[in-house]
Amino acid sequence: MQMADLKRGIIAVGREYGSGGRFIARRAAELLGVPFYDRELITMAAERTGLSPEFIKNAEENRSSAFMYGPYFTGTELPPQDQVFIAQSKIIKKLASEGPCVIVGRCADYVLRGRDALLSVFIHAPAEQKIARAREFYGLQGDDREVLSIITKYDKKRAAYYNEFTMSRWGDARSYDVTISSALGIDDAAHALTELAKGSADR
Amino acid sequence: MQMADLKRGIIAVGREYGSGGRFIARRAAELLGVPFYDRELITMAAERTGLSPEFIKNAEENRSSAFMYGPYFTGTELPPQDQVFIAQSKIIKKLASEGPCVIVGRCADYVLRGRDALLSVFIHAPAEQKIARAREFYGLQGDDREVLSIITKYDKKRAAYYNEFTMSRWGDARSYDVTISSALGIDDAAHALTELAKGSADR
Repeated sequence: MQMADLKRGIIAVGREYGSGGRFIARRAAELLGVPFYDRELITMAAERTGLSPEFIKNAEENRSSAFMYGPYFTGTELPPQDQVFIAQSKIIKKLASEGPCVIVGRCADYVLRGRDALLSVFIHAPAEQKIARAREFYGLQGDDREVLSIITKYDKKRAAYYNEFTMSRWGDARSYDVTISSALGIDDAAHALTELAKGSADR
Repeated sequence: MQMADLKRGIIAVGREYGSGGRFIARRAAELLGVPFYDRELITMAAERTGLSPEFIKNAEENRSSAFMYGPYFTGTELPPQDQVFIAQSKIIKKLASEGPCVIVGRCADYVLRGRDALLSVFIHAPAEQKIARAREFYGLQGDDREVLSIITKYDKKRAAYYNEFTMSRWGDARSYDVTISSALGIDDAAHALTELAKGSADR
């Protein structure tokens, strides 16, 4: 398949923690033959701003304490989280301008809103599947209730980050072109996304 | 395509007022060659319960006034809205047991939850498209703001009905297997649903 065939080739994927959203996004990128961007964004943003990857990671997770904040804040400078958001938004726009791609997280759907080629996506999963995935891929330990508490905490952070920087609501169907439960299967979900990316021109 | 091929052939579609959800649902049914059920449910429910179609329509729209309520309420009888919900749920289960089909509204996703063959769907649309559709297909008149007020009122009723009878939240991505904006196009949206209905077995 040629990338030029894609009606909506810029795919921005938000996802719950442990939902398998990253796997679906990567599989869709693979099926479409387009680049896939996830944590690499952090590194790229770091390079551009001169901030350390650690600083960026902490800012994204909203862990900027007064202690961390102090050395950077001069009164005219933006808070670290805002600096990072702006730096990443620039990178997201640059990547999108280079052609079709799949971008996970970082409010990419919002940053790229209004573009004809955008397909904004949200992936979620039933609690029991998120718990299993958090154990398998992120090494979370504890009983189901404990693991779910940690997952919920991470999701609340993602929601807070998204709701703070966008005018949409994280996880609400109406904030995205399409949302899918990964309970349908990684491969089935990825194929549905590629269908929407290709659009009617391809049939 | 044979109906027996479908991995998720019971498609339950919730939708915003004026979202075009009914058109997408009907198109998906057409593409899959399965029956499509919408308002017919009201009539079927009416026949089964002995209640008039008018009574059912009013109960669904939560317009049961004390005046209407009086003649039916004996102290042991359920309120009209609950009677109608139960009658329609029975019909939905019966239709689903007969084979693949597309059912619009009536909390069918909730009524049929837990079935392997279920694909639960929510369709929404940007405000300007809902306004245009409400004018074209439902004859709503007035300026944009007035039409949107009426649409919002209907959506609030649908949300209240759904949230009252289910343990999920209307319009939240996590309440459905898949949600789609009809801004992607009726045909593209319908094709994505048929992909998910067919599932990987078909590839």
